[in-house]
Amino acid sequence: MTGAESLCETLLSNNVNVCFANPGTSEMHFVSALDRQPEMRCILGLFEGVATGAADGYARMMQRPAATLLHLGAGLANGLANIHNAKRAGSAMVNIVGDHASYHLKHDAPLTSDIVSLAKPMSHWVRRTRSAATVAEDACEAIRASREAGGQISTLILPADAAWSELPSGQKPRSPHVPAPLAVPSQDEVRDAAKAIRANGPGALLLLGGAALRGQALDLAGTISCATGVRLLAETSNQRMERGRNRVPIARIPYSVAQAQAALSDVQQLVLVGARQPVAFFAYPNMPSVLMPEGCACIQLAAPGQDVLVGLQLLAQELGIPVGAPSLRLQNEVATHPSTGPLTGAVVSRILAHYLPEHAIICDEGLTEGREFPAASLNAAPHDYLQLTGGAIGMGLPLAVGAAVACPERKVISLQGDGSAMYTLQALWTQARESLDCLTIILANRSYAILHGEMVNVGSSALPNGNAQRMLDLENPALDWTLIAQGMGVEAVQARTAEEFIRQLRAGLSAPGPFLIEALI
Amino acid sequence: MTGAESLCETLLSNNVNVCFANPGTSEMHFVSALDRQPEMRCILGLFEGVATGAADGYARMMQRPAATLLHLGAGLANGLANIHNAKRAGSAMVNIVGDHASYHLKHDAPLTSDIVSLAKPMSHWVRRTRSAATVAEDACEAIRASREAGGQISTLILPADAAWSELPSGQKPRSPHVPAPLAVPSQDEVRDAAKAIRANGPGALLLLGGAALRGQALDLAGTISCATGVRLLAETSNQRMERGRNRVPIARIPYSVAQAQAALSDVQQLVLVGARQPVAFFAYPNMPSVLMPEGCACIQLAAPGQDVLVGLQLLAQELGIPVGAPSLRLQNEVATHPSTGPLTGAVVSRILAHYLPEHAIICDEGLTEGREFPAASLNAAPHDYLQLTGGAIGMGLPLAVGAAVACPERKVISLQGDGSAMYTLQALWTQARESLDCLTIILANRSYAILHGEMVNVGSSALPNGNAQRMLDLENPALDWTLIAQGMGVEAVQARTAEEFIRQLRAGLSAPGPFLIEALI
Repeated sequence: MTGAESLCETLLSNNVNVCFANPGTSEMHFVSALDRQPEMRCILGLFEGVATGAADGYARMMQRPAATLLHLGAGLANGLANIHNAKRAGSAMVNIVGDHASYHLKHDAPLTSDIVSLAKPMSHWVRRTRSAATVAEDACEAIRASREAGGQISTLILPADAAWSELPSGQKPRSPHVPAPLAVPSQDEVRDAAKAIRANGPGALLLLGGAALRGQALDLAGTISCATGVRLLAETSNQRMERGRNRVPIARIPYSVAQAQAALSDVQQLVLVGARQPVAFFAYPNMPSVLMPEGCACIQLAAPGQDVLVGLQLLAQELGIPVGAPSLRLQNEVATHPSTGPLTGAVVSRILAHYLPEHAIICDEGLTEGREFPAASLNAAPHDYLQLTGGAIGMGLPLAVGAAVACPERKVISLQGDGSAMYTLQALWTQARESLDCLTIILANRSYAILHGEMVNVGSSALPNGNAQRMLDLENPALDWTLIAQGMGVEAVQARTAEEFIRQLRAGLSAPGPFLIEALI
Repeated sequence: MTGAESLCETLLSNNVNVCFANPGTSEMHFVSALDRQPEMRCILGLFEGVATGAADGYARMMQRPAATLLHLGAGLANGLANIHNAKRAGSAMVNIVGDHASYHLKHDAPLTSDIVSLAKPMSHWVRRTRSAATVAEDACEAIRASREAGGQISTLILPADAAWSELPSGQKPRSPHVPAPLAVPSQDEVRDAAKAIRANGPGALLLLGGAALRGQALDLAGTISCATGVRLLAETSNQRMERGRNRVPIARIPYSVAQAQAALSDVQQLVLVGARQPVAFFAYPNMPSVLMPEGCACIQLAAPGQDVLVGLQLLAQELGIPVGAPSLRLQNEVATHPSTGPLTGAVVSRILAHYLPEHAIICDEGLTEGREFPAASLNAAPHDYLQLTGGAIGMGLPLAVGAAVACPERKVISLQGDGSAMYTLQALWTQARESLDCLTIILANRSYAILHGEMVNVGSSALPNGNAQRMLDLENPALDWTLIAQGMGVEAVQARTAEEFIRQLRAGLSAPGPFLIEALI
């Protein structure tokens, strides 16, 4: 058995059975080993950012890692932006990065680079395996690390000679390493949180993040809010929220600093539940970095990566809330939507919320134009909502790939800005290749609208035909997303009005994907 | 004056007047400063790898740096693969990477990452400027470093508060820093090289790299070869070769290890002229890393980044070769080409060589299918030939952008594999936006053919419909490059036969670009 074969077996025996791949020469022995292992589902991305973003989407839905296969430092570099997003999401991922044979490194061949230096900023765990004999042990470690704290990034560097060499005879297969169980909040933390909630009532805020935004934990947060009056909010960017009808309605801290400050202005006591203290996404002159009002106290019930469900259960107990007490539910009606007239980001959002199928998965990288979707869909059909977590745009379409691979029975809908879609548009080809049930809605405003807003924030307005306009507009020429998508094998149409969009959306929802609608807004 | 304005002025006063940009929020003050500086040509790329690859192409043709503008660690990461290629090419580049305001870093906002760790593997010079007051000095240093040793990579990290803050009053503008002159070979090196050539005659090989492949230096190498019988070869991958009729014909060391060994088998004495000792691109089991035959001696006339022209002049002098002695010229006829029949990579290469316009710039990322072009074009019209230098595919189309910006009066022709084109296909949009005279020929074999070859090398053949085939083929669905290109505003056609290709090539060459031909081979 070679090191490559032993890696393959270790992945499979640890239930890592999907590999989003963009291989190269130094990975050919591993590719050859994968070829003889049909239990591993290998999915090709025509750019590495597709592979890593897809692994993130998969982990968000499965709560376990997929592998990626990347080609040396440059291949890893191409995947880093979406690894960064996955790291910020708290997603599990096992990156296998091929490298030159160990004895070849000293010759500094053209593709040589310092892979460890590149991997470290975006990984929790990095190791270069030494030889075929160490591959299985190191891969077990990588997988274990990726499953710690709810989900982490592991990067295992695989030298070509470790892949192609035979294992020492008699080496036994490794047993999987069991990740440490999630840490549970201490009695003190629970007691302090209960005291703070009792003392402040609606002046207290449970800030929810990570696993607190799903399932029983989310429901329990709603129960605690019902019973005590404590407010609930989610972090601005989240790995995955369970939203819609008959679920606890949770707003998020707004992205804009001024709006975030307004939303938090009357909070006296912050209680973190799998969340971090809220900070501004970017700094601005004369604006604060920290979003909480002056004098607001902050305690932590559970840190990100701790067991938020147990934390909330203990908190409910401490507060004397009986099991089965009612939880928060939305009272208001489903949002209405215009059925004729011009298309805008808001109109698209409201129509989509109306027609949303049960258990759809939304991948939201709509940015400026998609900003009304969360409010419009509060009472929509139950759905999962995946967001851009690390601010590295180019995550939406790959994320949809991974979510669709994880959940083939569910419709995956990308609400996607045109500017952000361009970074990793190769994902459309993988959607076609794998016949994924992905519906992409491109919100085509033909500009980096978010940056136009930021220009205003810095007190500038772009000169006509000046450098700023040339760097912020996507006009001249306009992108035609129907042609681009068709060129990659994805059926696509354009919508210019609400009525067109409704017709096309219904068509897209009723047929299995992939399908793309370019909404000209 | 703000730090951003001072950066802008420093770049311009150092003759850095093209900026390939993909900005974000933390760069908005710099964008605003650029908006008020029309002397700076800002060129938007819809992906960072387009910006960095274009800066490489620009530097290869101008022998001076362009700036890139990138958005924090993730934006830099997206540009790293082509920065790697530029570093391996010896191209000058000044990367400006925005970052959070310095006081904001401690809050670890979502887009925060260790930019220095990411930048170092692909940069010769990295610095995070401290404040508005240090921006000009640090930018001068960055530009100076980028111009050292023929061309290097500088990465300047610009915190948002350094950009938006006012300079201390009375701070004077900085004078440009003059790069150190290129180092000149020592008398000993020249004497040893002359002795080695005299002793070995055709058993000696001048291995040329960098600036030795252009202009007077190349001609002088040919003169030395004529006079002494010393052989000439170029490195496998080069920044820029001047080739074609009435120029010294230089073959390159083949990419394949076996072919390279064969080409070098009878060399007894290697003399490096701006080149490095030849090593295999990748290691293979039971194959050598070093390509020179056992017992071959190796000396260096000039290291990469040293003054090869002066080195060759001193060498000719030492060898007693009179100024104006004849140089090597090709005697054989122009290669013929088929004018009908099926299209293959070889047919495309030979037709292109035949119709090549004078002073075209070839950006070759044709890989497997383009491998016959160099031989077919030895006696073609004079042209510049730019190659993939660092092995990080996705360089070709961006490189063409930069070359076309540098040389607007010349036709830039990309000979481009379909697989490699997908990595940075967003470059087509920039070609359209800037009306660049770029002709792209996609060699559409619909596979990672180079990796199919490598599978054979590792002793494997892919199972039908198995994982290897799924990772190495680009079929199901086939890409349609005419639709993709048109979707980005580039006129495009498909060619299925030699006669179709000839017609379309002539059309593409006679009209100003951009234009794309998908050659179905």
